[in-house]
Amino acid sequence: MNTGISGDQELIECYVPMKTNHKTKPEPIQVKVNGVEIGGREVIIIAGPCAVENMKQLLETAVSVGKSHAKILRGGAFKPRTSPYTFQGLGEEGLKMLREISIETGLPVVTEVMDTRQIDVVCRYADMLQVGSRNMQNYPLLKEVGKTNKPVLLKRGMMATIEEFLLAAEYILNQGNEQVVLCERGIRTFETTTRNTLDLSAVPMLKHLSHLPVIVDPSHGTGLRWMVPAMAKAALAAGADGLIMEVHYKPEEALCDGQQSLDLNEFDQLMKDLRKVALAVDREIA
Amino acid sequence: MNTGISGDQELIECYVPMKTNHKTKPEPIQVKVNGVEIGGREVIIIAGPCAVENMKQLLETAVSVGKSHAKILRGGAFKPRTSPYTFQGLGEEGLKMLREISIETGLPVVTEVMDTRQIDVVCRYADMLQVGSRNMQNYPLLKEVGKTNKPVLLKRGMMATIEEFLLAAEYILNQGNEQVVLCERGIRTFETTTRNTLDLSAVPMLKHLSHLPVIVDPSHGTGLRWMVPAMAKAALAAGADGLIMEVHYKPEEALCDGQQSLDLNEFDQLMKDLRKVALAVDREIA
Amino acid sequence: MNTGISGDQELIECYVPMKTNHKTKPEPIQVKVNGVEIGGREVIIIAGPCAVENMKQLLETAVSVGKSHAKILRGGAFKPRTSPYTFQGLGEEGLKMLREISIETGLPVVTEVMDTRQIDVVCRYADMLQVGSRNMQNYPLLKEVGKTNKPVLLKRGMMATIEEFLLAAEYILNQGNEQVVLCERGIRTFETTTRNTLDLSAVPMLKHLSHLPVIVDPSHGTGLRWMVPAMAKAALAAGADGLIMEVHYKPEEALCDGQQSLDLNEFDQLMKDLRKVALAVDREIA
Amino acid sequence: MNTGISGDQELIECYVPMKTNHKTKPEPIQVKVNGVEIGGREVIIIAGPCAVENMKQLLETAVSVGKSHAKILRGGAFKPRTSPYTFQGLGEEGLKMLREISIETGLPVVTEVMDTRQIDVVCRYADMLQVGSRNMQNYPLLKEVGKTNKPVLLKRGMMATIEEFLLAAEYILNQGNEQVVLCERGIRTFETTTRNTLDLSAVPMLKHLSHLPVIVDPSHGTGLRWMVPAMAKAALAAGADGLIMEVHYKPEEALCDGQQSLDLNEFDQLMKDLRKVALAVDREIA
Repeated sequence: MNTGISGDQELIECYVPMKTNHKTKPEPIQVKVNGVEIGGREVIIIAGPCAVENMKQLLETAVSVGKSHAKILRGGAFKPRTSPYTFQGLGEEGLKMLREISIETGLPVVTEVMDTRQIDVVCRYADMLQVGSRNMQNYPLLKEVGKTNKPVLLKRGMMATIEEFLLAAEYILNQGNEQVVLCERGIRTFETTTRNTLDLSAVPMLKHLSHLPVIVDPSHGTGLRWMVPAMAKAALAAGADGLIMEVHYKPEEALCDGQQSLDLNEFDQLMKDLRKVALAVDREIA
Repeated sequence: MNTGISGDQELIECYVPMKTNHKTKPEPIQVKVNGVEIGGREVIIIAGPCAVENMKQLLETAVSVGKSHAKILRGGAFKPRTSPYTFQGLGEEGLKMLREISIETGLPVVTEVMDTRQIDVVCRYADMLQVGSRNMQNYPLLKEVGKTNKPVLLKRGMMATIEEFLLAAEYILNQGNEQVVLCERGIRTFETTTRNTLDLSAVPMLKHLSHLPVIVDPSHGTGLRWMVPAMAKAALAAGADGLIMEVHYKPEEALCDGQQSLDLNEFDQLMKDLRKVALAVDREIA
Repeated sequence: MNTGISGDQELIECYVPMKTNHKTKPEPIQVKVNGVEIGGREVIIIAGPCAVENMKQLLETAVSVGKSHAKILRGGAFKPRTSPYTFQGLGEEGLKMLREISIETGLPVVTEVMDTRQIDVVCRYADMLQVGSRNMQNYPLLKEVGKTNKPVLLKRGMMATIEEFLLAAEYILNQGNEQVVLCERGIRTFETTTRNTLDLSAVPMLKHLSHLPVIVDPSHGTGLRWMVPAMAKAALAAGADGLIMEVHYKPEEALCDGQQSLDLNEFDQLMKDLRKVALAVDREIA
Repeated sequence: MNTGISGDQELIECYVPMKTNHKTKPEPIQVKVNGVEIGGREVIIIAGPCAVENMKQLLETAVSVGKSHAKILRGGAFKPRTSPYTFQGLGEEGLKMLREISIETGLPVVTEVMDTRQIDVVCRYADMLQVGSRNMQNYPLLKEVGKTNKPVLLKRGMMATIEEFLLAAEYILNQGNEQVVLCERGIRTFETTTRNTLDLSAVPMLKHLSHLPVIVDPSHGTGLRWMVPAMAKAALAAGADGLIMEVHYKPEEALCDGQQSLDLNEFDQLMKDLRKVALAVDREIA
């Protein structure tokens, strides 16, 4: 009762929706985030804390990851938390900090939008809108970000099939916004030693089926700080156009996801190692 | 690397959030939907079409399921569809039809709300708000329905753990709305002969951990019309407080989910069979 | 990239192998275990300890479950244990005890065979051969039990699809042994509050696709003693032809699986409740 | 209800069985296969057809992969096939061919053993014994290979947790055979575009927990010929000590797994690309 699609590229392709299909646009596209291009020969590294906590945390982290050649700053202001009793993010206050640090460091910022009512305010401060895993099938949200002129970072739902992932992107493209970057961030399986199971085969598969750039989040994909470097390297070797990683200037004091955040030195060292892997697969980290 | 929680009830319970925990409220509660009580000795059957299509469809279906002793009418006006190119629901027009038919038949209506911006309009027409599987972790939505005075039907995300499901309910209760009914509707597994894998063990587990009523959706749980009766009976035997099922007066012409919808005769026959199973486990269908 | 088989019975059926296909044998068959018939109107309950430990344990348990109307005694002599450092079973010594107790109580016995080299000795003492979950795709073993004249209880692998399960049965039937009972015992999913996820939809699906009897193991399917009754009732309501359950005269002292074993009183009470559910779905427990 | 083990290395480690635990043997070991060392700085590539079909097929394939710097030849003589009606392998005839080609090419051979009764004959011809995914929890088989003096290639079951995988290895080590290589080959998830989901995070995790070498099978892990190169590179970048890949001189005529087999030219090109990735992570392909 399997589809038997293994190897049968035609069968797979016929399921890919029109606007995300690589046959509609045979050439891979580049998504531009305030001057930074995702999807070209250069591999783009996005780094920053899970959540914006305060100016000092954000500034120190941003300056450092920028020096290590990260090209975009990440940081959450609206946080989707499994429990209502944990830190929910600083909201607009956090967005303002992101904007300020962006101006100071020159790094464009990407941040999550969780609700259609937040889109306007997030658009005022962010360079790129992130739609998180839990909202990958929040169709009203997808439609609304599809009406903005901001590039979108769409994360795969933790149990979304490749087909559903592309159909979610299709909701955005179908509204006229074609600047979408797909992000593999781990799927849910029976295995419990890692937070999720990072499905790196999604990278070649998505690039095979669609013209959109594909990046990987090894931080959420593993949940384990010490494992992030190995999987970051593997993601580049599999062909990813970039990485998004959680970096914190003091991971042990982070308000969320500290156990999966690299510190500034670890990130700097990793960037050096990633440069070598990028070159080995004919890419580069500028 | 397993939790080893099997049999260790204490360990399980310590994860259950405060307000949904059965220790906070040792007695099961009843949720009232415009006069219909879910969670008492009587098993409550919710039935109706996947989507509201037109007055004739809705009226004929509602009158018939009412005669067969369904107590609440279901029907979608805002539809979360995997593809942007399929029928997306009638919107407010559909809500008006639901209200009209409710008045005509005396059946309270439950319908899905997908977006915080839709809550006001849905509250004007519906007796109970449904939060669908794809939105189980849409936290802004959960918070907003938690601020209404409408009972809520919260469906389990298709890959949500029991813990995450209860934490989602906690978001609603935490805003002051304690009228929440939990609904198991199938989880995603490797098995592909059924649309989802109906996890009936969630019924005793949720009732063990929480005081909230628990119902089951065998239509989405199986995706197969012919299999709905077997799993509906199994759900009652497992201790469910009710069922929600898709019924259509002409399944073969349905705009969505026709392949899992019972027709009116099948539903009527099933209700007779369910009555016997309910009695066998000391419940009843009035 | 889904098969889209929902509702499309033809498509499902074309995958069912020849000899297990209900089209080859349109009528359900009965499997005879030393006078006990599985697959008829009567629902057959198999009960006993996880592992044979000693004569006293086995005798007291067997006499009691027999009085409660269990029809077949279960008990493991060769135990497949995840760790090499846990109790591995009594081997032939255990088989002898099973035979002795069988003679004393009149209950036929079913016990697991794990290795082709064990088949002869197990056949000398047992009335029915069990092939366990971990060996569902042990093809040399399937072929060898297919050459015996003993009825076979084939348990579903914890991650086997329905198709693979039927193909495993096909290995046995293909050797000439058509006396096979299929057993759903829980599949592995992401959910961790239960030991496995009991997939009760497998019951109607297997009976729909094949002519072989189908039983359910709610003990392994849940791993939780207190949950066994709810799921046992649900299994019968879903149409199972029988149940296999772990019962121990002193569960807290059991050498394996004590946390999922019913004690003698719990089993006796459950049998009374099961009788009512069986009648509600036009079956009976004699 | 999660273990919360993320980041908590102590907790993970306490589950690792004694003999496979890296604390017992703090230094990674090398497993020797007739002169070839797996687990050192050199990355070892194992290549060959899924099944031995005839001398011409085996010879041409072996000579070619050897020239491309594969160090060990793979090929199945006893094949575990899902259906009893597909090619089951040549048996001892296939083993003889493997031995002959091994002598001719100087490549050691690894081949699968499926049954305790086959161990003697396989040991006569093979340099390394493979225990396949379906037999990862075939404990009698594990014990018997543990009594031989042949190195063992143990493949992860397609739904085995990391803990269960290490416990399976423990069965072999516990019998005195410490020459075990672990192989990640894809786990079963809900995703259906690939045959399995290659869990590359298993590589750093297994190396973190145990001293045993870890290799990866991107052929079974993806089921897609065109995807093998991307995942092979990713596996090395993740830290794998080697790869096992299906290569066939005429994939389109292969009796099994042709759709996931590389042809001779594709393999030769891949080896060149792998060499660059190996160097980027401070390893080498000699």
